[in-house]
Amino acid sequence: MTAVQARIGDLCQALGGVLHGAPDHVVTRIGPLDTADASTISFLAHPRYLAQLASTQAGCVIVAPAQAEAAAARGAAIVCEDPYLAFAHLTQWWAERMRARPQPGVHATAVVEAGAFIHPTAHVGALAYVGAGARLDEGVIVGAQAHVGAGARVGAFTRLAPRALLGEGCVIGQRGIVHGGVVIGADGFGFAPVKAEGGRWEKIEQLGSVVIGNDVEIGANTCIDRGALDDTVLEDGVKLDNLVQIGHNVRVGAHSAFAGCVGVAGSARIGRHCTAGGGAIILGHLEIVDHVHISAATVVTRSILKPGQYTGLFPFDDNAAWEKNAATLRNLHAMRDRLRALEKKS
Amino acid sequence: MTAVQARIGDLCQALGGVLHGAPDHVVTRIGPLDTADASTISFLAHPRYLAQLASTQAGCVIVAPAQAEAAAARGAAIVCEDPYLAFAHLTQWWAERMRARPQPGVHATAVVEAGAFIHPTAHVGALAYVGAGARLDEGVIVGAQAHVGAGARVGAFTRLAPRALLGEGCVIGQRGIVHGGVVIGADGFGFAPVKAEGGRWEKIEQLGSVVIGNDVEIGANTCIDRGALDDTVLEDGVKLDNLVQIGHNVRVGAHSAFAGCVGVAGSARIGRHCTAGGGAIILGHLEIVDHVHISAATVVTRSILKPGQYTGLFPFDDNAAWEKNAATLRNLHAMRDRLRALEKKS
Amino acid sequence: MTAVQARIGDLCQALGGVLHGAPDHVVTRIGPLDTADASTISFLAHPRYLAQLASTQAGCVIVAPAQAEAAAARGAAIVCEDPYLAFAHLTQWWAERMRARPQPGVHATAVVEAGAFIHPTAHVGALAYVGAGARLDEGVIVGAQAHVGAGARVGAFTRLAPRALLGEGCVIGQRGIVHGGVVIGADGFGFAPVKAEGGRWEKIEQLGSVVIGNDVEIGANTCIDRGALDDTVLEDGVKLDNLVQIGHNVRVGAHSAFAGCVGVAGSARIGRHCTAGGGAIILGHLEIVDHVHISAATVVTRSILKPGQYTGLFPFDDNAAWEKNAATLRNLHAMRDRLRALEKKS
Repeated sequence: MTAVQARIGDLCQALGGVLHGAPDHVVTRIGPLDTADASTISFLAHPRYLAQLASTQAGCVIVAPAQAEAAAARGAAIVCEDPYLAFAHLTQWWAERMRARPQPGVHATAVVEAGAFIHPTAHVGALAYVGAGARLDEGVIVGAQAHVGAGARVGAFTRLAPRALLGEGCVIGQRGIVHGGVVIGADGFGFAPVKAEGGRWEKIEQLGSVVIGNDVEIGANTCIDRGALDDTVLEDGVKLDNLVQIGHNVRVGAHSAFAGCVGVAGSARIGRHCTAGGGAIILGHLEIVDHVHISAATVVTRSILKPGQYTGLFPFDDNAAWEKNAATLRNLHAMRDRLRALEKKS
Repeated sequence: MTAVQARIGDLCQALGGVLHGAPDHVVTRIGPLDTADASTISFLAHPRYLAQLASTQAGCVIVAPAQAEAAAARGAAIVCEDPYLAFAHLTQWWAERMRARPQPGVHATAVVEAGAFIHPTAHVGALAYVGAGARLDEGVIVGAQAHVGAGARVGAFTRLAPRALLGEGCVIGQRGIVHGGVVIGADGFGFAPVKAEGGRWEKIEQLGSVVIGNDVEIGANTCIDRGALDDTVLEDGVKLDNLVQIGHNVRVGAHSAFAGCVGVAGSARIGRHCTAGGGAIILGHLEIVDHVHISAATVVTRSILKPGQYTGLFPFDDNAAWEKNAATLRNLHAMRDRLRALEKKS
Repeated sequence: MTAVQARIGDLCQALGGVLHGAPDHVVTRIGPLDTADASTISFLAHPRYLAQLASTQAGCVIVAPAQAEAAAARGAAIVCEDPYLAFAHLTQWWAERMRARPQPGVHATAVVEAGAFIHPTAHVGALAYVGAGARLDEGVIVGAQAHVGAGARVGAFTRLAPRALLGEGCVIGQRGIVHGGVVIGADGFGFAPVKAEGGRWEKIEQLGSVVIGNDVEIGANTCIDRGALDDTVLEDGVKLDNLVQIGHNVRVGAHSAFAGCVGVAGSARIGRHCTAGGGAIILGHLEIVDHVHISAATVVTRSILKPGQYTGLFPFDDNAAWEKNAATLRNLHAMRDRLRALEKKS
């Protein structure tokens, strides 16, 4: 990685803001307001941190128009409509300069099977595998030890991190990011019970595929199973964190985002702009409409047809208090009956 | 992949059913009743879909004897005792024709250490690793970038998908499927606390192995730890979905099936024909008898000695309703006392 | 693997105990008291198993001074201050003799990029990848198909198991163990919402790294994300089981240990000597002080500032009983109001 030295004038131009202060001031770090020094560029994205603005030692702060005056009073500032979005753009500007872009071409130790198409601008890393008939479009990066199965397709500028796996016949669109350890296109979990033989399970071969839209990011060790007959689908802009499980035939609507350890069972249909907190479980064969937000560790057991926030988790407590409440909970229905009996009496 | 064109007469013969209709009709897709057209073969496995039978445009439907007449009235049909099982067989017939079977032999880029035995009919893919003294039996498939540790054994016709890992000395039986990212044989989680030194943890080396029976399928990124002293065991016909964790010394009985994200802690002993829904957690050092069914996201904290269905999850609700109920739950035991006091008074 | 034959005199010397019995007696197995025979060495670490001491057929037992007499009365014994810790040391002694240590050197099929430093005593396995400028210190083992990213550093005697992945620029200290499928240094989950465009997500590039101390063990398929601006940190002696998720900017204090399937969201700060049971979820941007113990499947939704055990899980029950209680729970707040009304009346 390369250390970045940035003139705040250049940053302001890149972010499309208005600069207060000397454009030649140089920053070498992005950081929060409270630990910033003169070499740090910081940002104020939430009113909660407003008090830190006056005291920060940051060399430059990115602020919204409402804070422009207060920010300029204390030193250099870049004024932007949406400081948090500007911060996101700033990290992208920074990353481009900090990290070397891999050279186009196929590493000598990569294995490319017959009939694969690799665009001349694409990069295939060391010990990577590209199966027969696979297609890598313009600017694609396939990291070291990554895997693109036979007939799979990777859209322009998508990056498979080292050791990501896109299975046979699966498709991902443009500008995607697939992190290490991801497995796209393993078999869905489908079996028919064989009653005649004491209940063994007969495999239902999974004949569908996985189809992923543009601008999708998939976190480390997440799994997306292929469909049983049709395809499992992630629409444009979906963001999945690490260790997420997406069962066969699931459809996730555009711009929905799931935090780590979320599990979605087979054939669930999830709308656009939904979110799920860490460890949430969504059962199968149900529907969730657009703009539904599932809290962490909540188990969705039936369809949700109305936008909103939904929650279902046992509040934690010190163990002794929990034990008493949990024990009582096991008799809750009986308590209700006792309460009713009292009500009738009174 | 190859497009499949199937005469329904051939399918009927393969499935062992009775054909109503013209055997030369060709289908090119398997699909559900409601979206089927003349080129689709469909099936009726659940009475819920009975109404769709009359209106489906399917070129052929697989039905049970009770629906034979109704099915034949509307077009071609294959009558089988168990249509869902026939559907499973149909997908297998289809997959065999759709997917190329890898050629026997060892890819030039695979690494095979000294003393490994590879049956002449086995396939070892590109960039795969086979450790010293490992054994691959008849018809075994080791996918690209997969890993078979030193001394590990793979039974006949078992398939390790690309990037599956079977650790040193571990054993899997015949006709198994191990999906990508699986790690079989990592160390169990065992440490002795060192009180004298402020509570650091001293490693207990895990000296056991993992022994897996026949007809076992293991989903993507699932982990099965080796035993501490003896072995971790999965009996015949066990099916594990993705991202499942099986701790050291666990024993899972034959034909038990666990959905995605299930965790089983060390030394749990689980019976035959059990199931666990997605995200269930089974604590360690306990016993579950045969034919126990654990609902999704349920936490099993003690042994279950009676067959049946067991559940423990907080019902989800809109967030505002949940908040009120959850807050009250933290005072449930006190509520019980208040109820008691009222009962004494009345 | 090599079969181990151990004179109990040699074992006693290695463990630093006092031997009762013939030092030339040979054992070939470590096992529990109840299934031990004359060729087995066993141990008594918990008073629960005291009754088994008299009847065990073990060739030798490791006991605490309090049990020395009873143990010697029935046969050979090694007396140690802490028998469970002695057992841990015994497994280490055993493992060293059972398993071959890989030879120093770089396998011909490994890829080592320019500027990487590999200590002459280090081992780099088949098909492994070591990126540009990476550093492997004395005695490091990089297993077959493992991955060390550009500029990453691995401290002395640390072992990356086959197919472990240490990402670009990440650092792990000495004597660590990283199991198969681990992904260290994938991007944290960070996006800015773009309100102007209907709620798509703009990526926040993750510019930090992962810094891991000494004596840390990380279980199979666990993920540790790199920090957004600063680093994600695991202090010395941390132990993580399989399929654990550690979000960006998290700090885990020394000697804390998390069981399988635990998820820790971004920017959580966890103290020293904490534990979390399987499937626990710790939300982000909160603080947990030293010596806090989180029970399995508990969701920590706010900071914990007092040491102790904390729990929050729905007790499981047979499904019918759970259904009644869960249904009532959804009306719990209303029940409280009814109870209050009765109290006012009475």
